[in-house]
Amino acid sequence: MTLVRTTARERMVLARDASRQIGLLGDDKKASLLRAIADAIEADAAAIVAANADDLARGERDGLAPGLLDRLRLDEARVGALAGAVRDAAALPDPVGRVLDERVIAGGVTLTKVSVPLGVVGSIYEARPNVTVDIAALALRSGNAVVLRGGTAAAASNAELVRVMREALAAEGVDPEAIQTLDDEGRDGARELMHARGLIDVLVPRGSAQLIETVVTESTVPVIETGAGVVHIFLDETARADWAADIAVNAKAQRPSVCNSVETILVHRDAAERLIPDVAAALAAAGVTIHGDETVGALAPGVVPATEADWATEYLTLDVAMKVVDDLDDALAHIRTYSTHHTESILTADEANAERFLAEVDSAVVMVNASTRFTDGGEFGFGAEVGISTQKLHARGPMGLPELTSTKWLARGAGQVRA
Amino acid sequence: MTLVRTTARERMVLARDASRQIGLLGDDKKASLLRAIADAIEADAAAIVAANADDLARGERDGLAPGLLDRLRLDEARVGALAGAVRDAAALPDPVGRVLDERVIAGGVTLTKVSVPLGVVGSIYEARPNVTVDIAALALRSGNAVVLRGGTAAAASNAELVRVMREALAAEGVDPEAIQTLDDEGRDGARELMHARGLIDVLVPRGSAQLIETVVTESTVPVIETGAGVVHIFLDETARADWAADIAVNAKAQRPSVCNSVETILVHRDAAERLIPDVAAALAAAGVTIHGDETVGALAPGVVPATEADWATEYLTLDVAMKVVDDLDDALAHIRTYSTHHTESILTADEANAERFLAEVDSAVVMVNASTRFTDGGEFGFGAEVGISTQKLHARGPMGLPELTSTKWLARGAGQVRA
Repeated sequence: MTLVRTTARERMVLARDASRQIGLLGDDKKASLLRAIADAIEADAAAIVAANADDLARGERDGLAPGLLDRLRLDEARVGALAGAVRDAAALPDPVGRVLDERVIAGGVTLTKVSVPLGVVGSIYEARPNVTVDIAALALRSGNAVVLRGGTAAAASNAELVRVMREALAAEGVDPEAIQTLDDEGRDGARELMHARGLIDVLVPRGSAQLIETVVTESTVPVIETGAGVVHIFLDETARADWAADIAVNAKAQRPSVCNSVETILVHRDAAERLIPDVAAALAAAGVTIHGDETVGALAPGVVPATEADWATEYLTLDVAMKVVDDLDDALAHIRTYSTHHTESILTADEANAERFLAEVDSAVVMVNASTRFTDGGEFGFGAEVGISTQKLHARGPMGLPELTSTKWLARGAGQVRA
Repeated sequence: MTLVRTTARERMVLARDASRQIGLLGDDKKASLLRAIADAIEADAAAIVAANADDLARGERDGLAPGLLDRLRLDEARVGALAGAVRDAAALPDPVGRVLDERVIAGGVTLTKVSVPLGVVGSIYEARPNVTVDIAALALRSGNAVVLRGGTAAAASNAELVRVMREALAAEGVDPEAIQTLDDEGRDGARELMHARGLIDVLVPRGSAQLIETVVTESTVPVIETGAGVVHIFLDETARADWAADIAVNAKAQRPSVCNSVETILVHRDAAERLIPDVAAALAAAGVTIHGDETVGALAPGVVPATEADWATEYLTLDVAMKVVDDLDDALAHIRTYSTHHTESILTADEANAERFLAEVDSAVVMVNASTRFTDGGEFGFGAEVGISTQKLHARGPMGLPELTSTKWLARGAGQVRA
């Protein structure tokens, strides 16, 4: 018996061909498709959990870190949550077909700019099977086909989830080739995906800073960079002490492993004595270790001396860097040097300083007197989040479904020619 | 004497630093800056023309083709036109500071999405000195610094234009480092520009398909592809004969060297006898050579037999390919195979076919009963054109000043933390 196996490129061609059908589906059909996928995931929960158990067993044999094993794990409850997220995406408004501009030009030609699907969305990510379902659901909801390349440690889980989703598409009369996985193609699959200009319209890497850097550097397909967050809070001279402590603890300790958690707290020199002892105590009570400069060390107990490397570190743990700066200009200069352009917040009672900070900090989200943890598609009211873009083209900050669309100009004339 | 010469990288750092000042300039200041540049260009017209004469003399010695020499040439009138284009850009509305979204989230944090400059715009282009001024003016008008790498055949002209523009900035109290040229760095300059992630925010190549392909493939900086136009017109079964002849001639012969000129005309088989003789005669009268299939050859005199290569060719000359197709589906399939996703137009009296064409053709601009020559920033009412994007991310179709901006979310709170 000959086993016919499609190559990565063949699968991407199938996805591109299928994208034409997906792109023309109406709102209701796309929503019902997602509900069918959610139902199928719930119905096949046992098989999904069983496939995931294979991944977990292999991960344990291979000595995967406990944190990674936890991210990999799917139980019945987590499978239910996955299905719930797909139903949430089904309920979102259709991002396709919005009229974005209308004008009448020379001789009465009418121009209409409408939102259209991108076509085929590619994603390269790590061993988190929930991303497989998330990205597929958001891509389909916005009329796109999807080509997935997840971490090999989750290959069995992903294969099962893709099988379930593809069967749901077929049962709904939609071309199942709209969902493809290249997991079994190893590194070659990722490489082909990154070089598939003309087949893949956008590539969204999700995962570590290193993975994103590799994709951004190597890819010839346009990439949306969902980057690392070396996030800053600046406690200005006039920052309120109670807000400083509350926001520092919320921004650092609520969920340290995510990109919107604060990594460096800058403190105005003239407020250092007033603010640092209380803020440090509140952080310590939340289990946070402070890596501080000498002034910080003199004002709070248990401070680990900071080195240059700390200012550039995205800890993603219960650690935070703390540094005293001379003034707002000094804070802005520090942020310019070390920020990854994700989110920065100033705490101040000085309106002029607040406005300068908003205008001069070059980040996707710039805040005054608020926790950096608000940088999130859910918190922004988008209903779903494709990722948080730290680049400036196409999308910046939390991305919802509209960021998975492009535009097209429709021109309707009656024989007009250009003069 | 030691000559201190800045490297390409040093110049890009200077541009990035200067971009902070440019990005904070108000509408009036940016407009007056551009008017000062226009005045300076006119005042220094003689020096500019003299520098250009050096380029022309070298070009003639090197055997540059007459068309390229013409694109390179600047006389007093063309210098005046350059200054006029800069004044036109000065008069455009400021694309920065537009409020694009507003919302109030958890606990009363207000979110405002505003347009902001991209930062530093890079451009790689050929030996056309007008592009040097065009791109610099549009970048500055939208609050960006600019790093230019023009064709070496125009190096003397570009150097003079850049000198004049930089002196105008300095005279207006603005950091002249906001305009940089890497012309004297040869190929290395272009390579460094394409790899200057973190210094250059977007790269806009302008020129031949080969130049654009090189930039798209090699660049690690985000690129806006301003691509080639293998543009199609489909004469449907019910196309009006008079419109067919008028639009074919306008789309091909008015200015064959530009990307929105038609390259392939597809004709519905059941309309071939009715339409082809007259359309071919009108094209012949305009000096156009038709490269056609057998049916076309049988219906019109002087048709050159078309080969497979013709369907993929962007002639940019008084040549056009013509092919008979079975029906709308066949036309759509041909366009899918050969289109460069720039502009396609259907001529039809059938509304259902018109709507199918608009929905299914995957191009930046899709037209019904109109000349493809309308795909142009000026015709669209943008007042200026940065280029015509054939990619799907960030900008698609004719790009105006707003396409040289990014966005930023401003969040204003009163101590809120995430629940």
